[in-house]
Amino acid sequence: MSPPPILPSLAERAASLDAADPLAPLRKRFILAEYCTYLDGNSLGALPAAVAPALSDAIHRQWGTDLIRSWNKHDWWQAPQRVGDTIGRLIGAAPGQTLAGDSTSVQLFNALNAAVRLRPGRRVLVTDPAHFPTDLYIADSVARLHDLDVRLVPARALPAFLADYGDQVAVCAYGPVDFRTGELHDMAVATRAAQAAGTLMLWDLCHVAGAVPVALDDMAVDLAVGCGYKFLSGGPGAPAFLYVAKRHQSAFDPVLTGWNGHARPFDMNAYYTPGEGMERARIGTPAILSLLALEAALTAFDGVDMADVRAKNQSLTGFFLDCADVLLEGQGFECVTPRDPERRGAQTTLRHPEAYGLVQALAEHGVIADMRAPDLMRFGFNALYVSHHDALTAVRVLHDVVTAGEHRHERHRRTGPVT
Amino acid sequence: MSPPPILPSLAERAASLDAADPLAPLRKRFILAEYCTYLDGNSLGALPAAVAPALSDAIHRQWGTDLIRSWNKHDWWQAPQRVGDTIGRLIGAAPGQTLAGDSTSVQLFNALNAAVRLRPGRRVLVTDPAHFPTDLYIADSVARLHDLDVRLVPARALPAFLADYGDQVAVCAYGPVDFRTGELHDMAVATRAAQAAGTLMLWDLCHVAGAVPVALDDMAVDLAVGCGYKFLSGGPGAPAFLYVAKRHQSAFDPVLTGWNGHARPFDMNAYYTPGEGMERARIGTPAILSLLALEAALTAFDGVDMADVRAKNQSLTGFFLDCADVLLEGQGFECVTPRDPERRGAQTTLRHPEAYGLVQALAEHGVIADMRAPDLMRFGFNALYVSHHDALTAVRVLHDVVTAGEHRHERHRRTGPVT
Repeated sequence: MSPPPILPSLAERAASLDAADPLAPLRKRFILAEYCTYLDGNSLGALPAAVAPALSDAIHRQWGTDLIRSWNKHDWWQAPQRVGDTIGRLIGAAPGQTLAGDSTSVQLFNALNAAVRLRPGRRVLVTDPAHFPTDLYIADSVARLHDLDVRLVPARALPAFLADYGDQVAVCAYGPVDFRTGELHDMAVATRAAQAAGTLMLWDLCHVAGAVPVALDDMAVDLAVGCGYKFLSGGPGAPAFLYVAKRHQSAFDPVLTGWNGHARPFDMNAYYTPGEGMERARIGTPAILSLLALEAALTAFDGVDMADVRAKNQSLTGFFLDCADVLLEGQGFECVTPRDPERRGAQTTLRHPEAYGLVQALAEHGVIADMRAPDLMRFGFNALYVSHHDALTAVRVLHDVVTAGEHRHERHRRTGPVT
Repeated sequence: MSPPPILPSLAERAASLDAADPLAPLRKRFILAEYCTYLDGNSLGALPAAVAPALSDAIHRQWGTDLIRSWNKHDWWQAPQRVGDTIGRLIGAAPGQTLAGDSTSVQLFNALNAAVRLRPGRRVLVTDPAHFPTDLYIADSVARLHDLDVRLVPARALPAFLADYGDQVAVCAYGPVDFRTGELHDMAVATRAAQAAGTLMLWDLCHVAGAVPVALDDMAVDLAVGCGYKFLSGGPGAPAFLYVAKRHQSAFDPVLTGWNGHARPFDMNAYYTPGEGMERARIGTPAILSLLALEAALTAFDGVDMADVRAKNQSLTGFFLDCADVLLEGQGFECVTPRDPERRGAQTTLRHPEAYGLVQALAEHGVIADMRAPDLMRFGFNALYVSHHDALTAVRVLHDVVTAGEHRHERHRRTGPVT
């Protein structure tokens, strides 16, 4: 089919934006599949070039040759702190407050339980009804263990809720970006409201770490968690991270008292004595291969200013929405992501009743996005490897698919889960 | 120094035992460091040859090229069940009862909490005072959450204790092998005693999985956990596993309610509905690279009969102790491992006041063992890659080191943690 007449000017704009992009050279730090426009880095980041050589070394030289001695010789033992501090630099956390390991669900469970113990007597845990499911499930589980109430309060209503009931709230658990719509909430406003109420603020940074500059220390956030496999591109199921503000560490009282968190783990004492500082947030023996893959992946951020990352993903998402305005008009799409660049993360979401078939058909043309039931198509923009040309390609292919009705073909009928 | 006169006959015996060893060809399934006698597979198993190609494929083709689609295309989603069932075959568990992922500490925490919920009203948790530290710490943590008492009862005293107080006990958490001495407890006797008392039996199989045949289903064990990095050789910090007997699964009520355990995880519901069977024991997104490394490592057990593995490690440990009897006599060593082959795992432990320096000095000669404070030297025997020649080499070098006093050299003074 012939391109709509507006296309040449959008292509020129993409070329011009890409030519002026200071981060364009970073694309070389990733191994990108040919003939693939990858806009699902908000779910699984692309493969950084540094990962394979690092894991080859970890397997052959460290595990295979140096064997058990690698815990000291290659400092596997300090890997959770080392990788944690590297992530800390991307989220505004000074060293000694961030630890990498386990899954977001596990870190969140440990953090929420500890938060409840830090605020004894307060019987309410507040979270966002639109939060990622695991955050809701873990909040319910922690509340059940400690006989607390869970109150579901939308992010924008949190300050008003805390003004009325804050003195009963132990902890507020929120995510800065709505994983469905891509809306970015104001972390500073919510955090200040929590502080005013004497409650703890716990942020789940899964959808912002590596995409949006976060100033945990400056905002005086209490606790944070996040995953390693979205914008940090640490690999499938990459270890998560936990941030505990320095001022809370000596009272951080974990329920997951694994031996790695003991003050003197190799004394093999029968009683748990929590380690100093973040050491006590360690749990069991960390999955070293996945952890070293994440560490290698994070070198893609070496020398990168998060302000540039943010400016670029705002430009990418804005350009994508501009392209959608002109190329997808009248095709049944609704943009559910805020148009104000300050109010959106590194993701755009289009609503369409045939989202499932559309995402499948896009993939056939090499454009990888994802969908969230029942009708949302998500496009993630990792500023380290996505170009404005990619954004235009995605919209152009979506236009072609929807006008040709390819998404209604039998082969795109939904049969199983979509990840 | 010249070898003692007895050495030639021990060397002949080693050669003859190795020549008759049906498992000797399995050594080729591992990449063993040259000039290294590796007797620390009870802490970190050696590198199976299948791991590097599997991880290369996982990185380049699966993650790098197929990207997010690999969750379905390469069935990352089912990896915890798939790897779990593979481990299940080594521990006497029929499919659908074993799940791989997370760390032993995390799995144990989830299992113990669920056990307490399966036995409401029973206020005591019993465990072994000689248990691995993490097991003791997690037991204390779970008891604190549920306001239970922890009673420390040595494994051999458990039946008598349960006969008196069993009706108050929710769960008994034990390990079949004492990690310090290598003593193997009678799992069947303890499990029967628990059953008679109506309490749940939870075994930590870290030191037996892949080394000692375990018959979880036949013994009607209730719950079990274990790690992937010792005799299973899954790599540093390899994912752990959890076994929940089929009959308990529908009532298994996890505290770690991560989204992967939801009945319909991709519906992204706000409320947790536990999945069918073992699905509900899943937590967060699993560390796929470490999990696929473990899966590849387990192919070293393909076609291997665990009875042969057990016969060989009994032969190896017995021969090691025989060598120690003749070569280390009068040098201050005490064997703390039972001489009865039915009462020891795949490990021998020698007590010596200078254990630390001795282990360091051994390593300089390429013999890798480990120590547990303050005075225990541990030697692990993985039947898949250790030979009787290795056992003799270790004792011979130990004899040379101790008679020459090498272990007292300044460079072997203890300075930091030993893993």
